[in-house]
Amino acid sequence: MAPKKGLLERLDEGVVIGDGGFVFALEKRGYVKAGPWTPEACIEHPEAVRQLHREFLRAGSDVMQAFTFYASDDKLSNRGNESSKKYTCEGINKAACDLAREVADEGGALVAGGLSQTPTYLSGLSKEATQKEFQKQVDVFMKNNVDFLIPEYFEHVEEMVWAIEVCVKSGLPVVASMCIGPEGDLHGVTAGECAVRMAKAGAHVVGLNCHFDPFVTLEGLKKMKAALDAAGIKVHLIAQPLALHTPDAEKQGFIDLPEFPFGLEPRTCTRWDMHRYAREAYDLGVRYIGGCCAFEAYHIRAVAEELSKERGCLPEASQKHEQWAGGLRMHTKPWVRARAGKQYWEKLKPSSGRPFSSAMSKPDCWGVTAGDKILKQKTEATTEEEIVDLKQKGRLMNGK
Amino acid sequence: MAPKKGLLERLDEGVVIGDGGFVFALEKRGYVKAGPWTPEACIEHPEAVRQLHREFLRAGSDVMQAFTFYASDDKLSNRGNESSKKYTCEGINKAACDLAREVADEGGALVAGGLSQTPTYLSGLSKEATQKEFQKQVDVFMKNNVDFLIPEYFEHVEEMVWAIEVCVKSGLPVVASMCIGPEGDLHGVTAGECAVRMAKAGAHVVGLNCHFDPFVTLEGLKKMKAALDAAGIKVHLIAQPLALHTPDAEKQGFIDLPEFPFGLEPRTCTRWDMHRYAREAYDLGVRYIGGCCAFEAYHIRAVAEELSKERGCLPEASQKHEQWAGGLRMHTKPWVRARAGKQYWEKLKPSSGRPFSSAMSKPDCWGVTAGDKILKQKTEATTEEEIVDLKQKGRLMNGK
Amino acid sequence: MAPKKGLLERLDEGVVIGDGGFVFALEKRGYVKAGPWTPEACIEHPEAVRQLHREFLRAGSDVMQAFTFYASDDKLSNRGNESSKKYTCEGINKAACDLAREVADEGGALVAGGLSQTPTYLSGLSKEATQKEFQKQVDVFMKNNVDFLIPEYFEHVEEMVWAIEVCVKSGLPVVASMCIGPEGDLHGVTAGECAVRMAKAGAHVVGLNCHFDPFVTLEGLKKMKAALDAAGIKVHLIAQPLALHTPDAEKQGFIDLPEFPFGLEPRTCTRWDMHRYAREAYDLGVRYIGGCCAFEAYHIRAVAEELSKERGCLPEASQKHEQWAGGLRMHTKPWVRARAGKQYWEKLKPSSGRPFSSAMSKPDCWGVTAGDKILKQKTEATTEEEIVDLKQKGRLMNGK
Amino acid sequence: MAPKKGLLERLDEGVVIGDGGFVFALEKRGYVKAGPWTPEACIEHPEAVRQLHREFLRAGSDVMQAFTFYASDDKLSNRGNESSKKYTCEGINKAACDLAREVADEGGALVAGGLSQTPTYLSGLSKEATQKEFQKQVDVFMKNNVDFLIPEYFEHVEEMVWAIEVCVKSGLPVVASMCIGPEGDLHGVTAGECAVRMAKAGAHVVGLNCHFDPFVTLEGLKKMKAALDAAGIKVHLIAQPLALHTPDAEKQGFIDLPEFPFGLEPRTCTRWDMHRYAREAYDLGVRYIGGCCAFEAYHIRAVAEELSKERGCLPEASQKHEQWAGGLRMHTKPWVRARAGKQYWEKLKPSSGRPFSSAMSKPDCWGVTAGDKILKQKTEATTEEEIVDLKQKGRLMNGK
Repeated sequence: MAPKKGLLERLDEGVVIGDGGFVFALEKRGYVKAGPWTPEACIEHPEAVRQLHREFLRAGSDVMQAFTFYASDDKLSNRGNESSKKYTCEGINKAACDLAREVADEGGALVAGGLSQTPTYLSGLSKEATQKEFQKQVDVFMKNNVDFLIPEYFEHVEEMVWAIEVCVKSGLPVVASMCIGPEGDLHGVTAGECAVRMAKAGAHVVGLNCHFDPFVTLEGLKKMKAALDAAGIKVHLIAQPLALHTPDAEKQGFIDLPEFPFGLEPRTCTRWDMHRYAREAYDLGVRYIGGCCAFEAYHIRAVAEELSKERGCLPEASQKHEQWAGGLRMHTKPWVRARAGKQYWEKLKPSSGRPFSSAMSKPDCWGVTAGDKILKQKTEATTEEEIVDLKQKGRLMNGK
Repeated sequence: MAPKKGLLERLDEGVVIGDGGFVFALEKRGYVKAGPWTPEACIEHPEAVRQLHREFLRAGSDVMQAFTFYASDDKLSNRGNESSKKYTCEGINKAACDLAREVADEGGALVAGGLSQTPTYLSGLSKEATQKEFQKQVDVFMKNNVDFLIPEYFEHVEEMVWAIEVCVKSGLPVVASMCIGPEGDLHGVTAGECAVRMAKAGAHVVGLNCHFDPFVTLEGLKKMKAALDAAGIKVHLIAQPLALHTPDAEKQGFIDLPEFPFGLEPRTCTRWDMHRYAREAYDLGVRYIGGCCAFEAYHIRAVAEELSKERGCLPEASQKHEQWAGGLRMHTKPWVRARAGKQYWEKLKPSSGRPFSSAMSKPDCWGVTAGDKILKQKTEATTEEEIVDLKQKGRLMNGK
Repeated sequence: MAPKKGLLERLDEGVVIGDGGFVFALEKRGYVKAGPWTPEACIEHPEAVRQLHREFLRAGSDVMQAFTFYASDDKLSNRGNESSKKYTCEGINKAACDLAREVADEGGALVAGGLSQTPTYLSGLSKEATQKEFQKQVDVFMKNNVDFLIPEYFEHVEEMVWAIEVCVKSGLPVVASMCIGPEGDLHGVTAGECAVRMAKAGAHVVGLNCHFDPFVTLEGLKKMKAALDAAGIKVHLIAQPLALHTPDAEKQGFIDLPEFPFGLEPRTCTRWDMHRYAREAYDLGVRYIGGCCAFEAYHIRAVAEELSKERGCLPEASQKHEQWAGGLRMHTKPWVRARAGKQYWEKLKPSSGRPFSSAMSKPDCWGVTAGDKILKQKTEATTEEEIVDLKQKGRLMNGK
Repeated sequence: MAPKKGLLERLDEGVVIGDGGFVFALEKRGYVKAGPWTPEACIEHPEAVRQLHREFLRAGSDVMQAFTFYASDDKLSNRGNESSKKYTCEGINKAACDLAREVADEGGALVAGGLSQTPTYLSGLSKEATQKEFQKQVDVFMKNNVDFLIPEYFEHVEEMVWAIEVCVKSGLPVVASMCIGPEGDLHGVTAGECAVRMAKAGAHVVGLNCHFDPFVTLEGLKKMKAALDAAGIKVHLIAQPLALHTPDAEKQGFIDLPEFPFGLEPRTCTRWDMHRYAREAYDLGVRYIGGCCAFEAYHIRAVAEELSKERGCLPEASQKHEQWAGGLRMHTKPWVRARAGKQYWEKLKPSSGRPFSSAMSKPDCWGVTAGDKILKQKTEATTEEEIVDLKQKGRLMNGK
């Protein structure tokens, strides 16, 4: 067997399909707790993490990203999270790498190690302290031979640049992805400027993940591309958006929407939304196309099916899914058979069955950002009094 | 270890929690094809089926229902489905029983064998021919020592009674569940009358599954209960609805909605909907409470959490889910911490983020039913011409 | 000129088109106060009342109903309304009759005198006291030679029967119309039974007005018709619904909707809704077809246009309105010219431009009815303390 | 009685309240035909036009704008409109001036003469030919002693400047108002640049009317104000928006929305929307605040009530409307009395009662503009074939 091609080589030659989100999927399956988003599932329930990797591999993902989200030491002991008593950053990250590698090898996929924004930075600590947290994760990734690194889910380009600096020292390809939208980062840096700074810091691929739906995310990427072009910088672009519609989100994305995180179901994208996303991303020049929260295997499969001509293949899971609903020809009910075809699904505007709900939400807009006292890391759990106080603050901020 | 209590004993003592839907979940994960809803996944990808069983077990399910939906011989060779060339009814059903038993034994759950309406009946064939199909599945179930039988997903009470007759001969408890709503079966028999006939045919538990949302389903169960009471019949009740909002569905349920089966996402129920469902079902006297299509592990967990006081325990998966969003106290963003509490989620009317979609859909209402020529079984795949013809028919029927 | 045909003769021969609502239209134009719905506009601003009559006449109305709504003496001094200091029931009713007659004579229309439910009844006073209020209005109508009487807007059939008894003594045709829906009156009498009692009390025409949209109203009329048929009673039917969509209203109609009375705009029916209403009413056998609150001249014109073949004529105002949007052929913008045609408008599902609003509302459901202390007549205005108290009560009743 | 203050003096001292729309109101009342928007109503039915003027005067309007919309000679004979056979531009404009003056004198209001964009310009004819049409209307206005001129409803600033040039020669104050939004005119000139050009051409007041809702209109005015400030130009600002919500309209405004002009009802603004509009317009520095299509008397009254403190008075019609729903204290139903207060109505998100409609529409976006062949003036009515052709074109343009 020929040696696997590396990430950059693959991007130069065509499209690389990322995977979907782990924390939302595993929360629904019962293995991850919303809030701390407990990455120790890799140790506690490897079979569940492994199975999710496999679903994405079958769906067409070229990358198995180790499930290391929020697995830095500082996160493991934040606000009542007691994971640090049982698990270490190193232990979790190693287990995650092992699982990713095991499944990646079943299908020739690459393994990526991910790291994200830290409570250390949000608490206003130094560059040195913040980079120390990143270095701990990168050390584990290096020891476990990941194929490349993904610093992702950063809301402040300053911290992102610090992360990239740590990552590039590894010598591995670095994919830098911020969780911001067209309006830019939380300190007011434009999306375009963020892209330029990431590239200048040494990232090989730059782009956006999480926080916004595919189409808002592509608006942000258009701004990034324009700024990179204007600066004469050539790097690849990555998009890994939510599989949730967020036209009503403001600067801070879906976190501000009142439905986050336990009432987001009606916003879930269909597979047909993903066909459109994949096509528009490709046409914009994005070559690393994947997903984040709420992206499940069938969303990734839709991306792979839309781009099957460009990639020259269909994913394994398409054996259970004929293009554009073709399998409905085998349905018992004749009127469902009549829905077998592209035009039907492309035009459908799906209803929510919720006549007492509005189409859009007014986001909470606290607008607090790194450096604000209220964001400081804290080991103890939030008390009842603090909750009451937070609710009151919310009412004042939003004039409710 | 003491011998496991049987189904009827458990129902007499308290609540039995069912599992969720397999075909929709496995379709999204890439193992089942929509249309024929290929149950051969049990043979092809046992790890995927096993994992789904485990998620339901961890979420609180007391029953592992073998994944044998549409696994009768006549279904395996319908309309271009070529499964019958590789697999037999017996092979698939046995594999399904093995997987269900394996996981059930990890947690003291019961194993159920399910059978559903047949192309044979829909094609207008005889009672004898139809019961022969049922007998083949029941034989496998008996050989594999299931704990009870679930004839479910029947739209005509006549066929349901035929199935019950086959099942009762096994000596096992029989749980009979029709996929109808408050308006009754497709031949015009009222929901109440259906319940009475099922009980008189020997079913120990009667009720409803699939086709409608939890609240429409409970409307149907109210009618069943009233009719059973009026007839002086004492049997237990079962509810296993969709996890999809269907206030706009008509007699034939969600199959008629234009979003079926690939655009249903915005209709997905939240966990909070399931709290309400579990409470209302319990208050109505329903004691077998589970789910069907789109019900995932977290929906079942919500049922188990709502009824934790009645059951005296919380499910294992609640280790990753504090009651009523309590885990949000550990969230980084202060305004998300402010959402930790019952009142917030109970009142939320979640938006869809889809301002160009309507809240409700006009269902296709072909209204064809058993005996109609268009429903006849057919081995060959549907042709292009037939699709065009079906679309035209749809336009005429609905005046579009 | 031949003498005008009377109401009953006209109904026997074909369709009689009623007029639209006065209180809502005149409130928007600045002549009537919402709450007491001040009918003294007839004296204060006769030109405004006359103009509204004319618009309905031009639009096709065969009846000019004198604007005497809530013009009984007891209403004029209710809850801070000080009209009774300046005006009398007799004075207002006479002025209203004069205006109606003046315009009716311009176009061969009939004049009707209307009377409605009374604070006297709601306060729990006697039949004698209540009928005395009715008699005062009927006396004015007789003195002013109206062509027939319309006791309308009654929520309790008991009071309605008392009103009919007073009216029939006049010898004029009596059109009895309740403001209830398919669920019946506020004391729990079914819609069908209400119809039968009205007819037995001597009404020549019975039916429904106000409180519900055209299609909910027709559901109620179906029940009335069925009960009358079952009782072997032959009377004509009247429908005068709202021009507001109220699928979400409960027993007490649009008064309970949170938008009443100052946020109802998005519910306003289009002219195309009225085509459908007119056709469905006619097909059901209703022969007195008009409107109530929010019905403006163009809604009545749409009714007249839909029934122009049956009536053998178009209304005068159709000189400014070609059938089914034909006049758009003269529009400057070509894409608006493309909308000239029936199919376009029949299929249109009009958007509200309000993505933060839901499609349906949860009605307040206090469910209080005649005899409840809180409904008692009271001369003094409502105090601040009472308002605070009412809000608190509302929260308790609706669990808000 | 002291001589009336002129427009500019009034604007320097405080707020001037405009009137609402005539064509939509009179179309609904049965006096104007949609499409050609027949201004000959002034001659045919002076009582109807006079009554509408009076309603606005009572509601607080300081200006009676003569109903001369689309009353230029070239409009009277466009696309099958045969008005020119019976009426002349001069005759209609004179009648309109007389009616406006008669009512203005009842309340100390000013009279304005309005002129709008012409088929002549849209057909690509010369500046000279276009200005000749304007001059004919201005001549009539001068002869009839109007107080000022309003060239309004222009989509191209080039034509607007030509109109201003004609108007300024009259020596009267000139109020120049374009029917564009924040995106600028149809030839691509920005809103800011339009404002500057209008002011430089000699307009004393510049701003926006029609085509967009109050809040989109104010977005446009913010851009105009910024550009005027940047250019060091001091003129007053005017806003006369629709009383229809149009967040989904594109560059060409509500004309492109599929609901135009016969399905716009659900978009109608409430009086509470107008309170917000008046306050935001005032805070932005707009001093001429009125309305256009769908603005009825009660909308103008709401503007006057919101600004009553600044103006030192309430309008006459407020005798029938207590501030912020205070009159509901006199309502019979206690739960409606509980709605008497500002907070209730400010927070209300009114429902449409239309669960099968979406919140927003996809506009037709033909994007044709002055100079396009399809916009050329044509005396003959549109034929059936042309309508079919237009529909086909629409489908192609919008990919439907």
